[in-house]
Amino acid sequence: MRIAILGGDGFIGWPATLHLSALGHEITIVDNLSRRWIDTELGVQSLTPMDSIQERIRIWRDVSGASLGFELINVADEYERLKAFLTNWRPDAVLHFAQQRAAPYSMKSDRHKNYTVNNNVNATQNLLNALVETDIDAHLLHMGTMGVYGYSTVGAAIPEGYLSVDVTLEDGSSAEQEILYPANPGSIYHMTKCLDQLLFQFYARNDGLRITDLHQGIVWGTHTDQTRRHDQLINRFDYDGDYGTVLNRFLIQAAIGYPLTVHGTGGQTRAFIHIQDSVRCLELALQNPPSAGERTKIYNQMTETHRIRDLAEMISEMTDVPVSYLPNPRNEADENDLVVKNDQFLDLGLNPITLREGLMDELLDVARRYKHRIDPGRIPCNSPWNRERAAGMNRVVEVDLSETPDKSVSMD
Amino acid sequence: MRIAILGGDGFIGWPATLHLSALGHEITIVDNLSRRWIDTELGVQSLTPMDSIQERIRIWRDVSGASLGFELINVADEYERLKAFLTNWRPDAVLHFAQQRAAPYSMKSDRHKNYTVNNNVNATQNLLNALVETDIDAHLLHMGTMGVYGYSTVGAAIPEGYLSVDVTLEDGSSAEQEILYPANPGSIYHMTKCLDQLLFQFYARNDGLRITDLHQGIVWGTHTDQTRRHDQLINRFDYDGDYGTVLNRFLIQAAIGYPLTVHGTGGQTRAFIHIQDSVRCLELALQNPPSAGERTKIYNQMTETHRIRDLAEMISEMTDVPVSYLPNPRNEADENDLVVKNDQFLDLGLNPITLREGLMDELLDVARRYKHRIDPGRIPCNSPWNRERAAGMNRVVEVDLSETPDKSVSMD
Repeated sequence: MRIAILGGDGFIGWPATLHLSALGHEITIVDNLSRRWIDTELGVQSLTPMDSIQERIRIWRDVSGASLGFELINVADEYERLKAFLTNWRPDAVLHFAQQRAAPYSMKSDRHKNYTVNNNVNATQNLLNALVETDIDAHLLHMGTMGVYGYSTVGAAIPEGYLSVDVTLEDGSSAEQEILYPANPGSIYHMTKCLDQLLFQFYARNDGLRITDLHQGIVWGTHTDQTRRHDQLINRFDYDGDYGTVLNRFLIQAAIGYPLTVHGTGGQTRAFIHIQDSVRCLELALQNPPSAGERTKIYNQMTETHRIRDLAEMISEMTDVPVSYLPNPRNEADENDLVVKNDQFLDLGLNPITLREGLMDELLDVARRYKHRIDPGRIPCNSPWNRERAAGMNRVVEVDLSETPDKSVSMD
Repeated sequence: MRIAILGGDGFIGWPATLHLSALGHEITIVDNLSRRWIDTELGVQSLTPMDSIQERIRIWRDVSGASLGFELINVADEYERLKAFLTNWRPDAVLHFAQQRAAPYSMKSDRHKNYTVNNNVNATQNLLNALVETDIDAHLLHMGTMGVYGYSTVGAAIPEGYLSVDVTLEDGSSAEQEILYPANPGSIYHMTKCLDQLLFQFYARNDGLRITDLHQGIVWGTHTDQTRRHDQLINRFDYDGDYGTVLNRFLIQAAIGYPLTVHGTGGQTRAFIHIQDSVRCLELALQNPPSAGERTKIYNQMTETHRIRDLAEMISEMTDVPVSYLPNPRNEADENDLVVKNDQFLDLGLNPITLREGLMDELLDVARRYKHRIDPGRIPCNSPWNRERAAGMNRVVEVDLSETPDKSVSMD
C-alpha cells in the first residue's frame, strides 16, 4: 500500500512510519518539522537524542533496505502544495498526525491558543478539501484523542465514538438515535479534535470520503520493534511540563530521583496505550477501511485505564522516589471514573501490552541512560488553564490521603 | 451600553447598528469590508445602491444626531489589533457577525471552502481569546444559524440549542442529560457555525465568558424603521445565486418576470424571520445576558416555517410569475418537515411580523424600483455541493406535482 504519513516526524508518526515500512508499505512522510521548532521555542529537548529526519531516513534505509520519501510541506498553510503532492503521488491511505498535540502547550498563552486552533483546524480542512478535489479516494486515518469525550461522561462506559440516545418526540413516544458522543473537551487542544470530528462527519456524508478517527489514550513507552533496531532510530521522549505525558514523566522523575509530580489529588482516571500497541492499531485500522458513504469509523485506541495517583504510588514503590502533590493547572474535576469500550481493536486481534509486563523497567533504563540530558527545571507544568487555576498554582494543595499512604513531600 | 458590532457593515450588521444606535447605545462598527470585496470578486452588486460605510455613518449622524465609530480590522487575521481595540474601547457587549455567511459561496470551490473555514473559525477563536485576555467581561452575542441542526431532526420539535436525551447506564438504568443538539450541518458554511458552538461551550466553561448564540432562520425583507429614514441608509439586498436567500430571491424574480426558481421539489421546509424582527431579537438578547459560569444561552431566532414550494406558489399567485423547478445544487433531502421552538423570544415580548402583513408588497416595490440593476444571469445558483450534484445540474428534475398545481416552465 502507498501511505502518506502527515506528521511522520513526530512522536507517533515516526514509529508508525517504521512499523508500516517494515510491513512492506511504501511511505512518504509529509511534515513541516514544527515539533522540532517548538523544542527550540521552549528551549527543551527530547530526552533521547534525535537525529534530523533526513538522517533518520538514511539509517532506516541502511537497516531495513526500505526507502522513505520526505516532503517538507506545512499541511495547515500550503494547501496547493499538499494538493499537488496528493495528485502526483496518489497514496492509497493518508495518516493524519499533522497537528499540535499537547494540551498544556495549547493553554500556554493567547498566542499558543490561536496557533493550535488555526494550525489544527486548517490542517484537517486542507487535507479533506484536497482529498475531495484530487478524487484519489484515499483512506484517511486521523489521530484523535480520548479527550474529545471530556467531561461528558454520565456514568456509562464510553462507547466508540457514537452514543445511542432516546429522544422524546412530539407525540410523547421516544425514538432511538445514534449520535456523535457529545463533545465536552477540557483544553483548546482537545477542542480542536472535536472540531475535526465535525469536519469528518461533513466530508464523509457530503463527499463520500472514507475516514477513520482514532480516539487515542495517553501513550507511554518509547520503543517499538523498529526503533530498537538502531540507536539513531530512537523515538523522541518528552519530559517537559508541556509535552511530557503523565506516565513517561513519572518514569523520568523516578530515574533522577525527582519527586513524582501529581496534579491535584491525582484522582483523575486516564486511558493508556503502549506505543507498540499504538502502531499496531494503526496497522489494524488500515486493513479495515470504511466504505464510501459510510460514516466516520471511530475506534477507542487505548488498552487500560489507571488513576493517576495509583500510577504514581506504583512507580514510587518500584523506585523509592516519593510522590509530590501539586496544584492542578488544569480546569477539571478532582476525581473521575473512566470505563472505556475498545472492543473493535480487540476483535481485530489486538493483544494489549499492559503496564505490568516489564516495559516500565525498559523505560526506566532509557530514562537512566539519558538522565544527564534532563533539565529538572523544565519538568513542572507552567501552563494554567484559566485565571483561577493560575492563582491557585501558588497555593498548597489539600489532599485527602485517608485512603492512600501519605507520601507527599514539599517542593520548591 | 457600549456595543462593538463586528461585521457591522453587513446585511444584519448594518440594520442592527442603526437599531441599537437609535435606542441610545454607543456603537463602534468593526469590519474589514470583506462582503464588499466578495461583491467585487463575484461581479455582482446589491440590488439596492449601497454607499460606503463612511458615507452611511455620515448620513446617520445627520439623520439621527448619533455618531458611530468605525474600525477597519480583520477579526480573523488581526488578533493583536482586535485585542488592542477591546482593551481601549472596553465595550459592554460585542455582537459577532464577522463571518462569511452564504452556504452556496462556501461550496463554490476548494478556495471558497478553505476561506470560509479559516475565516469563520479564526474570527470566533480570535474574539473569544481576546475577551479572555482583556478580561473586559463583555457579553458576546453571536449570529448562528438554524442550519446547525441540519439533518439531525428525528421527528421532535427543534429545541433551543439543547436536547434532553436518555442514556442507558452500565447498570441498565437510564439517566437524563441535556446536550448540545447533535450537529449535522448541510454545508461548509453551516459547519463553521457548529464549530463555533463548541468554541463557545469551551470558553464559557473554562473562562466564564458570557455568550449568547442566536440560531437564526432565513432573513427576509430589507427595511427596518431606521433604514427607511434616508435613501442612503438603505440595507443591502442580495439576489445572486450565492448570497440571495430564497424568499428575497423569489420577490426579485417576480419583480422582473423571471420564473421563480425552486431547487429540487421545493419540499424543503425552512425557518424564516423578518429583518425588523431580527434586530429586535438582538435588542432582547442584549437585555438578557447569561451570567458568568452559565452555559451558552441559545435562542432560535425565527418566527415561522414554510415549505419552499408553498412560498413560490404564493408569490406566483400574487404576481402571475410562474414557478420553475431546477435541479438542486445542494446535497439534502428532497422533502423535510420542520417544527421549531422559539418560546424564549416570544416570552421576552417579541411580536412577530409574519409574511402576510403587507411587507412582501413593500419588498416587491423595492425590487421593482431597482430592477434595472438586476443581471438575470446572476440569479441561478452555480455552486453544486459535490460531484453528484454537479453532474445532476444538467439533468431535468422529476417533480411529483400531484399535490401542487403544475406551474413548471422550461428555462434556458
